[in-house]
Amino acid sequence: MTFEEKLAEYADLAVRVGINVQPGQYVLINTTTDTLDFTRLVVKKAYEAGAKRVHVNFSDGPTNRAFYDLAPDSEMHEFPAWMVTQREELIDQQGSLLWIDAEDPDLLAGVPAKRISDQQKVAGRALEKYRASVMSDKISWSIVAIPSKMWAQKVFPDLPKDKQVSALWDAIFKTVRIGEGNAVEQWKSHIRELEKRATALNDKRFKKLIYKAPGTELTIELPEKHLWMTGASRTPNRTAFIANMPTEEVYTAPLKLGVNGHVRNTKPFVYQGNIIDGFTLTFENGKIIKAQAEKGNDLLQQLIQNDEGSAYLGELALVPHESPISSSGILFYNTLFDENASNHLAIGEAYPTCVEGARDLEESQLQALGLNTSMTHEDFMIGSGEMDIDGERHDGTLEAIFRHGNWAF
Amino acid sequence: MTFEEKLAEYADLAVRVGINVQPGQYVLINTTTDTLDFTRLVVKKAYEAGAKRVHVNFSDGPTNRAFYDLAPDSEMHEFPAWMVTQREELIDQQGSLLWIDAEDPDLLAGVPAKRISDQQKVAGRALEKYRASVMSDKISWSIVAIPSKMWAQKVFPDLPKDKQVSALWDAIFKTVRIGEGNAVEQWKSHIRELEKRATALNDKRFKKLIYKAPGTELTIELPEKHLWMTGASRTPNRTAFIANMPTEEVYTAPLKLGVNGHVRNTKPFVYQGNIIDGFTLTFENGKIIKAQAEKGNDLLQQLIQNDEGSAYLGELALVPHESPISSSGILFYNTLFDENASNHLAIGEAYPTCVEGARDLEESQLQALGLNTSMTHEDFMIGSGEMDIDGERHDGTLEAIFRHGNWAF
Repeated sequence: MTFEEKLAEYADLAVRVGINVQPGQYVLINTTTDTLDFTRLVVKKAYEAGAKRVHVNFSDGPTNRAFYDLAPDSEMHEFPAWMVTQREELIDQQGSLLWIDAEDPDLLAGVPAKRISDQQKVAGRALEKYRASVMSDKISWSIVAIPSKMWAQKVFPDLPKDKQVSALWDAIFKTVRIGEGNAVEQWKSHIRELEKRATALNDKRFKKLIYKAPGTELTIELPEKHLWMTGASRTPNRTAFIANMPTEEVYTAPLKLGVNGHVRNTKPFVYQGNIIDGFTLTFENGKIIKAQAEKGNDLLQQLIQNDEGSAYLGELALVPHESPISSSGILFYNTLFDENASNHLAIGEAYPTCVEGARDLEESQLQALGLNTSMTHEDFMIGSGEMDIDGERHDGTLEAIFRHGNWAF
Repeated sequence: MTFEEKLAEYADLAVRVGINVQPGQYVLINTTTDTLDFTRLVVKKAYEAGAKRVHVNFSDGPTNRAFYDLAPDSEMHEFPAWMVTQREELIDQQGSLLWIDAEDPDLLAGVPAKRISDQQKVAGRALEKYRASVMSDKISWSIVAIPSKMWAQKVFPDLPKDKQVSALWDAIFKTVRIGEGNAVEQWKSHIRELEKRATALNDKRFKKLIYKAPGTELTIELPEKHLWMTGASRTPNRTAFIANMPTEEVYTAPLKLGVNGHVRNTKPFVYQGNIIDGFTLTFENGKIIKAQAEKGNDLLQQLIQNDEGSAYLGELALVPHESPISSSGILFYNTLFDENASNHLAIGEAYPTCVEGARDLEESQLQALGLNTSMTHEDFMIGSGEMDIDGERHDGTLEAIFRHGNWAF
């Protein structure tokens, strides 16, 4: 396959498997000015799949950076109303939402953490209804990524400059199963495998998971009616979609108050154009009571203080250490890829779909079921080849889930 | 001056003279994905001038083209509500609006005229409040332009491909007085000259103007309290701004029902990514009763039928044939430049600021004063070295305004 053929297949995959555009649908694409050629291809494919209108929000790295560097402090507490209208209009019309990510992992490096966190907080509050709709799969949504120069440089600093972007393309194509025959068929069989794992875990009805690894001793209780999910989701009207590509995880929600112990991250966590790394979180009855990072500590502290729920967990996800992305040995500095190479947790909001019958519940009802709610949802990586995980049943018996970073059953 | 210095001066001019950013102001920039480097410079300058937030709407040529080529017919009659919210939020906050234009004059060539016109109509109705606020200078706004590859190719088809963009840059810099010493001072003295012309015309209180040229015999009556204006405008709180750069015109509004005769265009009129050319309009009591174009006739017919007011004139503007832009001999295929090389008229809405005390009036009051209202305002060029214009006073005496395309007084 030529590069152009792979590109076309990737665009097709994003449109037909990722967001799964339906005839007459409104499609919103959030991307950056680095993705022009690929985005144009996606737009065309979306119309060909029947979209009635495709709008692209092109954000621009240097323009965003200028905002954080030069705008007055007071503006960090403001958020344009039209941005809310745009997102809520998409929900009301039951449109589709595609992120085409090409971020610079260092875009906001050096910006005072409080400025970023203030803007994040106000955005979070303004977009609460929208975020809740996305988190509970009221619309189909997906995240895919393509190389930007800055990102490729971060991933392959030792390659000559003119080889970095194409090396990152190759790596991405592999993770999304492009170039190995019919990609749509590949994805179908991949999802079937993930769903088998989820079914097996659901059948076991574990009461809690116990994580052990260097720097990590953590117990996470699960809600009584928890569901293990895969990347294959469905909207209320049963349209299938894949919320991120690649996806290698099965995941569920923790019991908000049932997390105890400490956990150390194993891959850099890129948050808002900054790298946070070398950190340990200590939990007591669900709450993060201590957090310390070797890099990006200010931003980590701000993140945890975003709101009440951002000091609690919202997701636990299992990914074998021998997953294809992990085996590549590439550190992507991008959560979309790195989370699919590693067991991970998320700080903040739980997915309502992870508890039986919870999708349409209000925030207070979700809390009553023991689910965390927050305007934050940020994944961070904790997996390695040295991680063991046991599941504890309600009768107290233990069962191995992971040994040396891989599935034990 | 190096190219980079000229670029920086141009960005500064757009920010400090064009929209004249005030401390604490919200700035909206409408531009295309072709203008990245220049737009980033403008964003930085706008923050430096005190803007509190600069949002950039990047539209993308191929993405827009895909909409017109591939979206269903029914969608041509729809317009996203959030786009209205965005613009009205700008007005409510008394922000500033800058267009950085880099259009492909052939972007929508071949798209059925009805699709373009249907979308234009619904956009016009949705954005009525916004458009009226801009037309009556409720906020500061400006249009500047920079080369895109497609545009440069259209202007300089005979140059080698790698020289076209820089040739267009040179041409643009000249028209906006960059590279001839302090540009801000140049602009001040240029505006003073234009204002002298406007004052002289205002003192004469002409009842009508009579245009004669090959293909043109046209009489335009003026409202009793008409005002001749220049490109130098002021918001209600007296912030000065220049609504387009370059600007070489003095202009006023016609009496809606007082236009009779026929007029032939002298430069191509680029409308919605299409060229309309070789056309004659025939007027009877203000209304266009006949219109025929050698090129783009379908779109011309649609434009005139946009609404009731788009079959009437809304502006007449005087630009000497020996103006700097005209003397360059360059056909820009871009109204911003070509209108400032030539006497021109506009189909559609009149500027309320062109009649004493009319800025804050409602549509019905504007109509009562004899001003045209419409959701359209499209300039087209009629000037040449062969055009004579006489002014007729209320006592019936005639006075030469233009002879052989240039000022006669």
